[in-house]
Amino acid sequence: MSELTISVIGGDARYIELIRQLQFIPQIKTVISGFNKLEQGFIGAKHVDYSDLRPEELDAIILPITGTKLKGQVETVFSDETIILTEEWFKRLKKPTPVFTGITNDYLTTVTKDTFAQVIPLLERDDVAIFNSIPTAEGTILMAMKHTDYTIHSSRVIVAGFGRVGHTVANKFAALGAHVSVAATRIKDLARIIEMGLNAIPIDQLHQYTNECDILINTIPAQVINERVIQYLPSHALIFDLASKPGGTDFDFAKQRGIKAILSESLPGVVAPKTAGKILADVIIQLLQERGSTNES
Amino acid sequence: MSELTISVIGGDARYIELIRQLQFIPQIKTVISGFNKLEQGFIGAKHVDYSDLRPEELDAIILPITGTKLKGQVETVFSDETIILTEEWFKRLKKPTPVFTGITNDYLTTVTKDTFAQVIPLLERDDVAIFNSIPTAEGTILMAMKHTDYTIHSSRVIVAGFGRVGHTVANKFAALGAHVSVAATRIKDLARIIEMGLNAIPIDQLHQYTNECDILINTIPAQVINERVIQYLPSHALIFDLASKPGGTDFDFAKQRGIKAILSESLPGVVAPKTAGKILADVIIQLLQERGSTNES
Repeated sequence: MSELTISVIGGDARYIELIRQLQFIPQIKTVISGFNKLEQGFIGAKHVDYSDLRPEELDAIILPITGTKLKGQVETVFSDETIILTEEWFKRLKKPTPVFTGITNDYLTTVTKDTFAQVIPLLERDDVAIFNSIPTAEGTILMAMKHTDYTIHSSRVIVAGFGRVGHTVANKFAALGAHVSVAATRIKDLARIIEMGLNAIPIDQLHQYTNECDILINTIPAQVINERVIQYLPSHALIFDLASKPGGTDFDFAKQRGIKAILSESLPGVVAPKTAGKILADVIIQLLQERGSTNES
Repeated sequence: MSELTISVIGGDARYIELIRQLQFIPQIKTVISGFNKLEQGFIGAKHVDYSDLRPEELDAIILPITGTKLKGQVETVFSDETIILTEEWFKRLKKPTPVFTGITNDYLTTVTKDTFAQVIPLLERDDVAIFNSIPTAEGTILMAMKHTDYTIHSSRVIVAGFGRVGHTVANKFAALGAHVSVAATRIKDLARIIEMGLNAIPIDQLHQYTNECDILINTIPAQVINERVIQYLPSHALIFDLASKPGGTDFDFAKQRGIKAILSESLPGVVAPKTAGKILADVIIQLLQERGSTNES
């Protein structure tokens, strides 16, 4: 890998670790923007005001996990500076430049379209999603412990969905001795769930099982935790919705029934920012090294 | 089991569930003292001021987990009433009467000596200790999640002691994907630890392993987490001491080194009072039923 200048623009607690990890790579020179509330020198990397950044000189750009808002604003937890990414700015890039983000949106797609920017939404990658599902599952365990007066051991847990998050969550709760059922659609998922020693529920029959459920965890980004499903839950039951906004729960009906339902976003950043930052750093560094070796060959 | 009148004198949140469970047994009439801050009728059992209790009429007595203080005071979390158990009071018992407590002490032994009271310290029983170790381990997981910015998964955990608590704690952290080592003395424990797929450390060599440890969990009620052991810990390491007061850690030296060390008492009552109450109720009911069938036969 030849010498690279990487600009980190905004980010949350995870990015402290991400930036720290980048510093371990001698070929990488990191400049950061949107961190001026942190003590000078805390991170070690050079802080440059966004307006002074020279995209002409950048080899890669790292945006916050959230990407940009709908008008191009960048989330800067550690700064009061307002940073707005524009098409003009991206047009100043001089060569194909990876732009790492967690998720992308129409704005980012549009303003980078006719530029050298190559948007890479990291959370869409299987490796990042699976590694991230570990702190997500631990965060769900933490919430379960906080909101109950009984142990996870022996409690009756239903996980809706057997994707990258649902699989890990089911695993972890089972490992702690909960009685875990998983609701899924595909034959191969239902078979795998049984192989793991858990109860498999065809998702369209979920409502037939919720009367014996203490904790219902949704991971599906569609309204699967509907009236019919909620209706049979015992009144002490809890709903944790891990699907991205707006979740997959009829929160109004849950409230009406007096059942606590919590939409939990970005648990990795909350419970384990250091681990979550390292997950991102590892993938970014690997991708940059792959690009480097391709370019050099 | 013939009809029994049981007096519950004092207790914490666990006792709400304990009393609730007793109500399910038709042969048991429960009278409670030291709960007058709870809403009348909340528990369902009859509340009687301690001074109005008639030991002559009791078939069993349930004291708080903590038993009595050194001068006979009973812990009453849900009352401002001061309750002091005396020899005179116990002398009024008319027949052999089980007195359930968590732990006992010299005071309780002395004042019950020449009476019909039969003190039964429940926490000394293997079943109670093992069942209780589950919420203890979950509480330790909760603390680990709260005090770290990394996941339990992949973290390096050393558990000192392989008794009823150490065994469960090692199991649970391993189940969540931590790299777990256990320090123990006995050959059979070291062999079992290896069988479980964990690292076994002879306890006298513990200090040789602490330089690669993120979380050190002590379960041994003796000063095993001493200067030599603490000295090699990385500065970010955490110590959780689960051994009963005063724990097994040189807290002064840990503080001097800037290492966070926490003595965690009665986690079951904190993280899972309902489960912990049910554990006690199950054993008490079983013991009463055994006594009943012996008396009847």
